Amino acid sequence: MKERELRHLLDLVRLGTLSPERAVERVKHLPFEDLDFAKVDHHRALRQGYAETVLAKGKTPTQVAEIVRAMLRHKGGPQNILVTRADAKTFAMVRRVNSGVGRAAKFHQLSGVITIERNPEIVGKGLILVVSAGTSDIPVAEEALLTAQIMGNRVDHLYDVGVAGIHRLLEHRGKLTSARVIICIAGMEGALPSVVGGLVAVPVIAVPTSTGYGASLGGITALLGMLNSCASNVTVVNIDNGFGAGCVAACINRL
Amino acid sequence: MKERELRHLLDLVRLGTLSPERAVERVKHLPFEDLDFAKVDHHRALRQGYAETVLAKGKTPTQVAEIVRAMLRHKGGPQNILVTRADAKTFAMVRRVNSGVGRAAKFHQLSGVITIERNPEIVGKGLILVVSAGTSDIPVAEEALLTAQIMGNRVDHLYDVGVAGIHRLLEHRGKLTSARVIICIAGMEGALPSVVGGLVAVPVIAVPTSTGYGASLGGITALLGMLNSCASNVTVVNIDNGFGAGCVAACINRL
Amino acid sequence: MKERELRHLLDLVRLGTLSPERAVERVKHLPFEDLDFAKVDHHRALRQGYAETVLAKGKTPTQVAEIVRAMLRHKGGPQNILVTRADAKTFAMVRRVNSGVGRAAKFHQLSGVITIERNPEIVGKGLILVVSAGTSDIPVAEEALLTAQIMGNRVDHLYDVGVAGIHRLLEHRGKLTSARVIICIAGMEGALPSVVGGLVAVPVIAVPTSTGYGASLGGITALLGMLNSCASNVTVVNIDNGFGAGCVAACINRL
Amino acid sequence: MKERELRHLLDLVRLGTLSPERAVERVKHLPFEDLDFAKVDHHRALRQGYAETVLAKGKTPTQVAEIVRAMLRHKGGPQNILVTRADAKTFAMVRRVNSGVGRAAKFHQLSGVITIERNPEIVGKGLILVVSAGTSDIPVAEEALLTAQIMGNRVDHLYDVGVAGIHRLLEHRGKLTSARVIICIAGMEGALPSVVGGLVAVPVIAVPTSTGYGASLGGITALLGMLNSCASNVTVVNIDNGFGAGCVAACINRL
Amino acid sequence: MKERELRHLLDLVRLGTLSPERAVERVKHLPFEDLDFAKVDHHRALRQGYAETVLAKGKTPTQVAEIVRAMLRHKGGPQNILVTRADAKTFAMVRRVNSGVGRAAKFHQLSGVITIERNPEIVGKGLILVVSAGTSDIPVAEEALLTAQIMGNRVDHLYDVGVAGIHRLLEHRGKLTSARVIICIAGMEGALPSVVGGLVAVPVIAVPTSTGYGASLGGITALLGMLNSCASNVTVVNIDNGFGAGCVAACINRL
Amino acid sequence: MKERELRHLLDLVRLGTLSPERAVERVKHLPFEDLDFAKVDHHRALRQGYAETVLAKGKTPTQVAEIVRAMLRHKGGPQNILVTRADAKTFAMVRRVNSGVGRAAKFHQLSGVITIERNPEIVGKGLILVVSAGTSDIPVAEEALLTAQIMGNRVDHLYDVGVAGIHRLLEHRGKLTSARVIICIAGMEGALPSVVGGLVAVPVIAVPTSTGYGASLGGITALLGMLNSCASNVTVVNIDNGFGAGCVAACINRL
Amino acid sequence: MKERELRHLLDLVRLGTLSPERAVERVKHLPFEDLDFAKVDHHRALRQGYAETVLAKGKTPTQVAEIVRAMLRHKGGPQNILVTRADAKTFAMVRRVNSGVGRAAKFHQLSGVITIERNPEIVGKGLILVVSAGTSDIPVAEEALLTAQIMGNRVDHLYDVGVAGIHRLLEHRGKLTSARVIICIAGMEGALPSVVGGLVAVPVIAVPTSTGYGASLGGITALLGMLNSCASNVTVVNIDNGFGAGCVAACINRL
Amino acid sequence: MKERELRHLLDLVRLGTLSPERAVERVKHLPFEDLDFAKVDHHRALRQGYAETVLAKGKTPTQVAEIVRAMLRHKGGPQNILVTRADAKTFAMVRRVNSGVGRAAKFHQLSGVITIERNPEIVGKGLILVVSAGTSDIPVAEEALLTAQIMGNRVDHLYDVGVAGIHRLLEHRGKLTSARVIICIAGMEGALPSVVGGLVAVPVIAVPTSTGYGASLGGITALLGMLNSCASNVTVVNIDNGFGAGCVAACINRL
Repeated sequence: MKERELRHLLDLVRLGTLSPERAVERVKHLPFEDLDFAKVDHHRALRQGYAETVLAKGKTPTQVAEIVRAMLRHKGGPQNILVTRADAKTFAMVRRVNSGVGRAAKFHQLSGVITIERNPEIVGKGLILVVSAGTSDIPVAEEALLTAQIMGNRVDHLYDVGVAGIHRLLEHRGKLTSARVIICIAGMEGALPSVVGGLVAVPVIAVPTSTGYGASLGGITALLGMLNSCASNVTVVNIDNGFGAGCVAACINRL
Repeated sequence: MKERELRHLLDLVRLGTLSPERAVERVKHLPFEDLDFAKVDHHRALRQGYAETVLAKGKTPTQVAEIVRAMLRHKGGPQNILVTRADAKTFAMVRRVNSGVGRAAKFHQLSGVITIERNPEIVGKGLILVVSAGTSDIPVAEEALLTAQIMGNRVDHLYDVGVAGIHRLLEHRGKLTSARVIICIAGMEGALPSVVGGLVAVPVIAVPTSTGYGASLGGITALLGMLNSCASNVTVVNIDNGFGAGCVAACINRL
Repeated sequence: MKERELRHLLDLVRLGTLSPERAVERVKHLPFEDLDFAKVDHHRALRQGYAETVLAKGKTPTQVAEIVRAMLRHKGGPQNILVTRADAKTFAMVRRVNSGVGRAAKFHQLSGVITIERNPEIVGKGLILVVSAGTSDIPVAEEALLTAQIMGNRVDHLYDVGVAGIHRLLEHRGKLTSARVIICIAGMEGALPSVVGGLVAVPVIAVPTSTGYGASLGGITALLGMLNSCASNVTVVNIDNGFGAGCVAACINRL
Repeated sequence: MKERELRHLLDLVRLGTLSPERAVERVKHLPFEDLDFAKVDHHRALRQGYAETVLAKGKTPTQVAEIVRAMLRHKGGPQNILVTRADAKTFAMVRRVNSGVGRAAKFHQLSGVITIERNPEIVGKGLILVVSAGTSDIPVAEEALLTAQIMGNRVDHLYDVGVAGIHRLLEHRGKLTSARVIICIAGMEGALPSVVGGLVAVPVIAVPTSTGYGASLGGITALLGMLNSCASNVTVVNIDNGFGAGCVAACINRL
Repeated sequence: MKERELRHLLDLVRLGTLSPERAVERVKHLPFEDLDFAKVDHHRALRQGYAETVLAKGKTPTQVAEIVRAMLRHKGGPQNILVTRADAKTFAMVRRVNSGVGRAAKFHQLSGVITIERNPEIVGKGLILVVSAGTSDIPVAEEALLTAQIMGNRVDHLYDVGVAGIHRLLEHRGKLTSARVIICIAGMEGALPSVVGGLVAVPVIAVPTSTGYGASLGGITALLGMLNSCASNVTVVNIDNGFGAGCVAACINRL
Repeated sequence: MKERELRHLLDLVRLGTLSPERAVERVKHLPFEDLDFAKVDHHRALRQGYAETVLAKGKTPTQVAEIVRAMLRHKGGPQNILVTRADAKTFAMVRRVNSGVGRAAKFHQLSGVITIERNPEIVGKGLILVVSAGTSDIPVAEEALLTAQIMGNRVDHLYDVGVAGIHRLLEHRGKLTSARVIICIAGMEGALPSVVGGLVAVPVIAVPTSTGYGASLGGITALLGMLNSCASNVTVVNIDNGFGAGCVAACINRL
Repeated sequence: MKERELRHLLDLVRLGTLSPERAVERVKHLPFEDLDFAKVDHHRALRQGYAETVLAKGKTPTQVAEIVRAMLRHKGGPQNILVTRADAKTFAMVRRVNSGVGRAAKFHQLSGVITIERNPEIVGKGLILVVSAGTSDIPVAEEALLTAQIMGNRVDHLYDVGVAGIHRLLEHRGKLTSARVIICIAGMEGALPSVVGGLVAVPVIAVPTSTGYGASLGGITALLGMLNSCASNVTVVNIDNGFGAGCVAACINRL
Repeated sequence: MKERELRHLLDLVRLGTLSPERAVERVKHLPFEDLDFAKVDHHRALRQGYAETVLAKGKTPTQVAEIVRAMLRHKGGPQNILVTRADAKTFAMVRRVNSGVGRAAKFHQLSGVITIERNPEIVGKGLILVVSAGTSDIPVAEEALLTAQIMGNRVDHLYDVGVAGIHRLLEHRGKLTSARVIICIAGMEGALPSVVGGLVAVPVIAVPTSTGYGASLGGITALLGMLNSCASNVTVVNIDNGFGAGCVAACINRL
């Protein structure tokens, strides 16, 4: 693609339509906007998904709101906006920035996710199913589910189906086999993805969670367990990374 | 599916065609074959891929050969056969078992992979590209590539494109964007998947390798780096798990 | 058991007493109740112990109270109810749910355990003895003791008998040898189970605790020490997992 | 017991039957035999099991043989003898020491176990079942099984039933429920004990194995997973510690 | 000692002065006092030092005060009393318990140490010198110094002499060589004991501290460094364990 | 140098100008000032940089202010003063100590740095460029930048140029190549220094940050990644150690 | 630079001297040579040093020799060639490839380094001094020294000056202060760089080595210690990475 | 001491007896001998013990022999010589160097220790007792024992007294209480020092060993356990560091 663009620019230069100076400028002018503390990359949304996203953790509420304002300002067709790991204070500032601009911003308290839906189009080809092992894994599951949804996918979930009560999971084999991509979330020993992976033929994105205590090592145990899964359709993302799992699932579901 | 089968059995029972005793037997008779030390699961191949696979590591050459013999014997249409982490001795025994049965077994020395191609059909919808960082990552890359190929996919590779010479990688953006699924293999700091992930819109399966020394911790560093990738289309499999990456890529490419 | 049930169902189908459709439903109808965020598994209590249990950590007080309400509602004969890792707020909500229903809920502050005793029957065959090394191990010891007790066992304890004052422990050899199962709780170097294990012939369930500082690594050191115990009648559960130790001890004591 | 003995001694002293000097000697004379480099503890066998055991690893073949010779010499009724982690060389020396003395010593090559059966009595009350996940877990499984057997238990096994093919395991629910104690052996993610634990009501001794590679960390991952098991009847022993699992299972099965 | 006591008892029994029953009781009656939650071991003070000590961390203020009360009550000659890791609240309770009994309790805020000096006798043979690397290591240094002092030793200190300014340390070689035992306290890279150890011929007790950040890993780095010290007169205690270092130094200084 | 000084002293002694006693004193009188809890080393500033520095973390506000007062008092020509990891309270005390003495103290809130510029001279030969990957890395970046600046260097920065959007970085190759020393700051996978190192020929000081979650392990992952950098001009300092990076960069830039 | 080149190309295009097609080719034609398994980057040598380098570890002797052949073939002025982590077999193949081409290849057995000196020019401005702690650190020290030398620097060394005998180091302060860059190599506790860093005003590149045993953790302890160095002119490279230290030192010495 | 020497030198200078040049030389002339690859420090033996020592690991046999030759050559009164971690080959070379010089060199195969006794004087004031837990800990125990002995101490040992058979240890309380310093060696859970420390009033030097498997982590578990010992007279040295323990014990025993 880059080659084609470059050739086009060079043709313009050869024809005298474009001066070399401006050509250099054009090559340099990549489509991101500089807020000094953050470079908002509008093209990433185009390249990689159907939503612009901000990780609120590690940023001040004001910084998050400024980034959202830049996203709302952007002319490239209305994109959905997703803010993860936010708190009520950040939500208040984002809501103010968004007010009167379009669809209301929503705050999903369990997971700390803020969504601003501006484009309801479904672009994913199948269903993304979020499966989780325990009640305390639900915040991460919700982050994954909302991420996949805001990126234009049909989603469903199946919660509290840990492997020590295998019949609960087997009860829902129908749901499992209806999915095109599965996100599988578990803490403690992280065994769920292996069992789920063995029951289906589609890709399973495993998300370890930091629930548990003692030898769960803040999710490291679940992470290691999932990386050693004996099911060969399982891949893994970082601990508590519901967002990442949602992104990858959306990315696969667009194929 | 199970429900349908069960209903069918029950209908037969109701009609008196099948005695309850035999029905119980049938329900129990799942399609795997018991070699005492290993249960060969012919249905897994049907469920999850287009090849039957054996991990040779931790098994004696004789055990591997016996499993391959059972696979060759199986009546369910000729499946490709893949043996991973094998050595020359295991290959010799496998070749003997396979001789005269069909296509010759091939030994891929760098990766220790044995392939017996019995079904050349291409079932993957796009190209699977294997990208690797350094020369010493090639054995793992080859395992991934052969796995994807034997499971019915078109494959290509791009080797020795580490991030400290970013121009080498950027040179091949065309190849990168031609792939439907990318497998990205790197040791040491494991930074390649982040850069590759940022350049494409398709899923990237990251495989850390155990190359390196000292603080590379046998691949743990690359693994951790990949799990923390700031590119949101990257998922990770176990260290040196080229086989797993090939499986997942094949699984995604069939969607 | 499953086989027998299945055969019985099939017999009913053959006799025309049960339609195939209903038989399918019956097979599917496993005895758990769906609260959306949690699947209450009444049968687990029947299968594995004599109490229904809730881990309060990671659940909101309201969620815990709802689960307890469902347990109280259940028709399968009055089971004892155990809530672990609860705080005063959760206890207040549980007490409200339980009020007027039967035996009062009790809050054991040291360990954060809530017990609702509805069935005082003793089902364990011998004594379960809880032995702990230091004063700060007592919360975990209490969790183990209450768990074993609520599951229908006679229990006793022996506290503050660390190995650096071996005479304190040897003083109580009589108590040690009176037990059918021993739960042994220690932090820091976790040496107590090895010494206790060498003094008795019954199974010793070792529980590492997170007491200590620095190189105690939050209980990892005690855990590792116990896993390396040179006494061959010692097994180990997770750090601070008094509940798990109580369950296993109860499970063994029913044999 | 010690108290009773002591009182008896004191009575003898009071009666003048025993001089104080000799009484002191008697109290001190505990029943172990000093080989200088090892103290053979004949009473441990009486106290804790029905076999005398030697860990060959870390000892020279000569040392092992000397210890076995002392065991054979001991007058306390014929005990079975178990040597673990031995090699062919050690077996040769043990066989020489044992030749002509009684039952032949047997070498179990897969696990490196040597058994000398001198007492065929069954003392365990129920069946001990050894369940393992993969073919490469069999050496550890065999060590566990032989240990339980030589200690006077009926044993059975169920191999190659990993959780990624859950139907294989569910096929054998009958066998699972027939056991009084289960030993559950798995490497990689170590998920098997959670699933097995959820299917039965008896104690499950989990043994992590060092099979696997990369993020399996030589068995640490399986170990951590098992310690975090969500099934409440699971306890854990050290990595590859089939012997320990066999001992604990025997200890429980005698209750 | 035990042998002599036992022989004496037996002589009394033989002479009819002591009945066997009472002899058994006497043997059993070891000199510790049971507070239910803690066994106060008055003999340990006699055996191992010249102070009775309580670790306040992990105990409630009331528990600490009760233990101190029992110590004050004890008839074995006035011992110094040391409470470590206490806060103001615990001190208030201890002061109340101690008021009017004798010497005032003192609270040393930096280290959280409470001392009640009841016996000013110097029993150590030489000087114990506490050397520390940085300003933030002083709390641990103070704990070590007060512990050594309350156990009857002359003490001195040398603070803020880190190895990156080696001349500061070399300035005080005189002080270093005047000590009979040195306690050496350092965080970060923990290099001080190696340098100090190389400059003196007396034992150096190294105490790693949890000061530092990032790769200091809460003191693990300093701990590991000290364990690898190339000076052969260095031994190590736990992270931040000023108390332990003071005890060991006192123990050596009494020799 | 020391040799020359010593020879000079000895010459004075030989000439009778200096008595042996005073000579001994002189040799001993090294130029640092003792505040009891801290030894202010005025010469270190001369030896190693152009600023006197205090790490506020682990010191009380009063201690910090006292150290600054001693620095202000010192007669050796006005040095810049740098306090790192300070909070508002410490700043208030430092400001009071500094008031009326000279240039105002400034508090840089993001990084917690206090600067007192007393000597504006530029001593570094080239530009020090601070490059950082994400918005949340800016506090560490600011600490590095201010440290380099207060030590007499021209500085510039380039923020939010993570490797997953490689075009952002490549956009600024001009800036990168204008630097004489680069400080490169990144959390998560820590891949930025490898890419930057490959683009320039000057030394790159890599600083891992503790941003991220889960498998970022508080910065350990970034640290390990940087240590394994495949670019050969990269060295590493401790996690979040912006100060250290600034010092080293200043040290190199003076060469 | 890239910008200037691009502008020049565009000028040629505008002038019609260069066709757009060829311009595209030129832009793409970066100066590296493809050996299929490795991309030899001749420009890296120009960009980053004065030697072309190969890491032999992880490559077959044939692969190494092929890469060296390509380097020898390259037309860009004779560069020195450095092969690290080679063995005798690799050296034999390299020697054959090099024979008759120019200066003889030398094999430095202790460190496994092969050097082919083709350009004796000194380009570094000052002396690079390699300081090491113990005899067993010498192989890494030699790798660092030869790397710095082959890249055109004057080098010297100071071996066996560990911190437990601080006088040995202080003896050589003259040598230390004569260096422009210091490489400081130590295993075990890794304390040497802190002491050396405190004695000089120039940058100190610290290299941890994997010498030691037990808690030295294969060099991790030394690595962690160096990262926590309290001397502010110390940076760190990977364990045993003498090559990297030599490169960085050369890079700094060219400034 | 240094001060006194310096004053003496200065007096000589003042008196004209010594020229300044020579005085400078004298100050510089510290008593170590340079073998280029190792600096033999004859004074360390005087300062820190009664033997000169070489760690053979990481040195070639020739290097070890050369160091021994220099030690034998040294004129400062016959010192004992100790070589640790040697093999038969190194012993052969050492024996050759020593032949005809004096007392024969002895090789202690279990521990790999070589001793050359040249000075039989006993300088330690009491008995050093080496206590070890298992048969496989004996090599480390022997290294400790021989080190203490060659440094002029009376030594005794007590082997195979692990804590799981506590009666074995209690049997030997007499021996324990006869020691002035105890070295306590254990692998696996490393619990022995806590129990021993609680039984005696003298310092206990704990040495973890790398015996064990799985969760023993090569001795890390024993090391951590010992660092967390609840006995306050226990200090710790590195894993398998029998030599270090012997040195420290000798150092204490000379006090």
